Amino acid sequence: MRTLLRVRMDALDVTQEPMPEELQALGGRAVTSAIVASDVPATCHALSEHNKLVIAPGLLAATSAPCSGRLSVGAKSPLTGTIKESNAGGMAGQTLGRLGVGAIVVEGLPADKAACYVLRVAADGASLTPAPDLKGLGNYDTVARLFEQHGSDVACISIGPAGEMKLRAASIAVTDIEGRPTRHAGRGGLGAVMGSKGLKAIVLDAAGCKRPVSADPEAMRAHSKRFAQHLKGHGVTGEGLPTYGTNILADVINTAGAYPTRNFSTGTFEGTSKISGEAERETILERGGTPRHPCHRGCTIACSSIYLDKDGGFLSKGPEYETVWAHGANCGIDDLDAIAHMDRADDDIGLDTIEMGAAFGVAMEGGLLPFGDAEGVLSLLDEVRAGTPLGRILGSGAEVTGKVLGVSRIPCVKGQAMPAYDPRAAKGIGVTYATTPMGADHTAGYAICQNILNCGGSVDPLKPEGQVAISAILQQATAALDSTGLCLFVAFCVLDVPDAGVAVVDMINAHCGTQWTGDDYMEILGKATLRRELDFNRRAGFSAADDRLPDFMTREALAPHNVVFDVPNEELDQTHAGL
Amino acid sequence: MRTLLRVRMDALDVTQEPMPEELQALGGRAVTSAIVASDVPATCHALSEHNKLVIAPGLLAATSAPCSGRLSVGAKSPLTGTIKESNAGGMAGQTLGRLGVGAIVVEGLPADKAACYVLRVAADGASLTPAPDLKGLGNYDTVARLFEQHGSDVACISIGPAGEMKLRAASIAVTDIEGRPTRHAGRGGLGAVMGSKGLKAIVLDAAGCKRPVSADPEAMRAHSKRFAQHLKGHGVTGEGLPTYGTNILADVINTAGAYPTRNFSTGTFEGTSKISGEAERETILERGGTPRHPCHRGCTIACSSIYLDKDGGFLSKGPEYETVWAHGANCGIDDLDAIAHMDRADDDIGLDTIEMGAAFGVAMEGGLLPFGDAEGVLSLLDEVRAGTPLGRILGSGAEVTGKVLGVSRIPCVKGQAMPAYDPRAAKGIGVTYATTPMGADHTAGYAICQNILNCGGSVDPLKPEGQVAISAILQQATAALDSTGLCLFVAFCVLDVPDAGVAVVDMINAHCGTQWTGDDYMEILGKATLRRELDFNRRAGFSAADDRLPDFMTREALAPHNVVFDVPNEELDQTHAGL
Repeated sequence: MRTLLRVRMDALDVTQEPMPEELQALGGRAVTSAIVASDVPATCHALSEHNKLVIAPGLLAATSAPCSGRLSVGAKSPLTGTIKESNAGGMAGQTLGRLGVGAIVVEGLPADKAACYVLRVAADGASLTPAPDLKGLGNYDTVARLFEQHGSDVACISIGPAGEMKLRAASIAVTDIEGRPTRHAGRGGLGAVMGSKGLKAIVLDAAGCKRPVSADPEAMRAHSKRFAQHLKGHGVTGEGLPTYGTNILADVINTAGAYPTRNFSTGTFEGTSKISGEAERETILERGGTPRHPCHRGCTIACSSIYLDKDGGFLSKGPEYETVWAHGANCGIDDLDAIAHMDRADDDIGLDTIEMGAAFGVAMEGGLLPFGDAEGVLSLLDEVRAGTPLGRILGSGAEVTGKVLGVSRIPCVKGQAMPAYDPRAAKGIGVTYATTPMGADHTAGYAICQNILNCGGSVDPLKPEGQVAISAILQQATAALDSTGLCLFVAFCVLDVPDAGVAVVDMINAHCGTQWTGDDYMEILGKATLRRELDFNRRAGFSAADDRLPDFMTREALAPHNVVFDVPNEELDQTHAGL
Repeated sequence: MRTLLRVRMDALDVTQEPMPEELQALGGRAVTSAIVASDVPATCHALSEHNKLVIAPGLLAATSAPCSGRLSVGAKSPLTGTIKESNAGGMAGQTLGRLGVGAIVVEGLPADKAACYVLRVAADGASLTPAPDLKGLGNYDTVARLFEQHGSDVACISIGPAGEMKLRAASIAVTDIEGRPTRHAGRGGLGAVMGSKGLKAIVLDAAGCKRPVSADPEAMRAHSKRFAQHLKGHGVTGEGLPTYGTNILADVINTAGAYPTRNFSTGTFEGTSKISGEAERETILERGGTPRHPCHRGCTIACSSIYLDKDGGFLSKGPEYETVWAHGANCGIDDLDAIAHMDRADDDIGLDTIEMGAAFGVAMEGGLLPFGDAEGVLSLLDEVRAGTPLGRILGSGAEVTGKVLGVSRIPCVKGQAMPAYDPRAAKGIGVTYATTPMGADHTAGYAICQNILNCGGSVDPLKPEGQVAISAILQQATAALDSTGLCLFVAFCVLDVPDAGVAVVDMINAHCGTQWTGDDYMEILGKATLRRELDFNRRAGFSAADDRLPDFMTREALAPHNVVFDVPNEELDQTHAGL
């Protein structure tokens, strides 16, 4: 039986309890959203003592299921005001699975506003320790000290200075296989919630712990193997992502005219070939970097990479598609090395790369610096790290940056910046941005599949017809997948290969001893989770009127297709009708 | 027939048209809200080309009606996202009345983002002129130059650097009898809308113009005289306000335990006697200032004053109650001279004193400077003037300041800071803050009358019962009054003296030739205006869930009465049911 760790920052104690009965069939996002929805007052301020930070591995964490190491982090978001789940790769999910921990719930605020604590979770128990020496450190230095203190086999979850400053773009970092803090629960400012609670880091030590025992170990092995074969056989999960990483999308989305450029003012970037996945791979290979790299053990896709600087030293993980776009095309920057430096700085300071790139784009539109000024961006990241007023503005995200600078074109939904797909030229993802309970978030219902990748079907990205239907089903399927611990990227395969989806349910049944049908899986992990999230948001004050893209996207036509976002509001409001 | 001036900043032209038929019976807020509600797309960004700034004198402007010089300014607010009307005293309302102008509608954005124009309106027409020499000037220097150029008999409407920077706390200044820019349409950041349009100032020259001719001049004179006598005979309008000004309230509200102190953390301020109306009057008299002073010709209350510095030089108009509170108790500051300096700086930079005081209080809670640090506040005002990043944060208002600094106790509704009455200990005003279409605004339904002043009845301020009813009727009555051009302060008298209310309708009928009953008056100017405003807000995305006070006020008890805000949401949602 998995356990739930309750960490009370007001009392500075940690208690352990069995996973409550209603959470026993759940994992990942289903767990974080269920706890936040039931235990956090929906109208509370996200940085107040009433909010809770919930960390949960997926249902299949630490099993033989391939790519099952995603970690869910949930809370009321200080960026959006909605319920939030943000998930990350790295080693924490699998390690929590081995530790038998189903959820860590961090509650209350410490009496000392300057508190800086580390939570250690190991086979022999869990404890909180003051760690004043870590205060203000970047994630890289933080985890280096933690590895010194706790050994190099632990997994770390940590925040950088941004989280300590409670900045709304603050992320939560998770260490990867090499022990680098390169995987981030980036979206929604959950790092600020962790920072408000005075929790600098969590050290997970699974020494002496074994994999959780499956109800039917033999079936589990067989289904895992079958699932792994499907992943290997699919063009995206077996070839595209392993070879080029996520940034393979740069050229694809640019060609589709949906690559948001210079603060979403046009849909193609003339410098794309310099920052594309192909260029990135070439640079990595030239310098002796690692072009293919899994973010956690058990990942068979391995879409990440290791990016070396010009002198051959480690610079950052290979910047992901969203990161390259945010700091690249969106800022008019075509210098991959500069972008990798920004990625490293974001990871170290503990910032969401999407939100930061969007904030820089808005700042450029507001005249703070010219589009294309890579040196300027790097210097502004130093300001964020130092917590100067300007740094705090930018670290508060794109919407606040726009407000402070008097900019009227702000590409946000519910206060969160849009990722790397202009919704005018990829309307399915626009429906997701508008209607997901998470604020503008591509991962909540990745309609780029059907809009552009011809994966799981095909829907004309430029027309309003059919977009709501694909977003609706993707949002449900994603909520389910986010609960398993499986990486979202398995969805490319699942959408195309019916038996891959069957294998997911088979793995859950074999591991948990359940007898779920595909419909059970979708209902229990997917639809019920979405319903809880939507209900929380309603109680927090959100209504259909919040499920809208910014006004300018319905008026300003996007080149080259000269399209506005024109999915009718009445249709948007039907997105969740099937729940 | 009054005229409507249409000022197109994209085309840089001004055209004149008759007041549209549907606006002919309206004035002030009824005009601004009708135009904004019908002509501004509700979901547009307030700083985009789609917003319009509407300036309208009251229905009785320039007549013999006493205290009828209020000027209404309306737009979609960049601070709240709602429709907004903010009104000001000073000479502009009466001057527009003489000019026969019913509304000035400023539309579009200039092609040149750095544009700086002056609009001149005179008997011989209206024109736009570039005024690069005024760029960046404070309101005091701005109007000094305008008087040099246009003669000292004009009235000026202008913005300071805050408006030019499109800061969300930016006000619009109106010159007073002495030609000083001391009267402000402060709330809602309308100065930023004016700034976004590149309009630095409006010069109103009524030379050669006479008072508008009333339909029944004799009746108009008689009713005006009768109304003036009522005002003179009432304790508040005939004695309290003329003697002590609005700041007579400091001691009253502090005694009631509703004087928000140190960012709304307690309800009494130990330094009140140093900053009260009594202390202010004493200081003014000691230095040879003017303790009683009307803000416009025709005002018989004359609640303003002239505040001299220690050397006997002009410093500012006597700071109003809200201003003294915002920079005083709310910041833990008990130095009246320092507060007068802040008032002068706010007026000159063009900032809403309420929003700024609230922003400083939040900044103090966030640790930016200690409570009580008057020098610190003055130095921060210099930063706002200079447009430094920190200055821009503060000039963006209390909510943005709280977001950037990670503060969770933010006393705002719909993004606008609460004025000088803690709604936990004066629950009627809490209902108004929550439910007025304007965001937290005391003037929209001043239930302090019944809660504390025993004016127009008496309702226990500490209990939830009966508060919705008084706020509801006050909101309707205020919308009507804001449309006449009459100063809100006449309401103290109207609430207590039935014939004073009759006289208001009599004056309108005598002047306009209408045959309105009291019900007609309330319906046409009051209820219809509120309905338009509420409908705009609904279309802009606001719902009942936005009609709430911040969560902390329902949880944190306020000393000394140890009360939370506990008017049930279901009751709040009934506030406008009678419309």
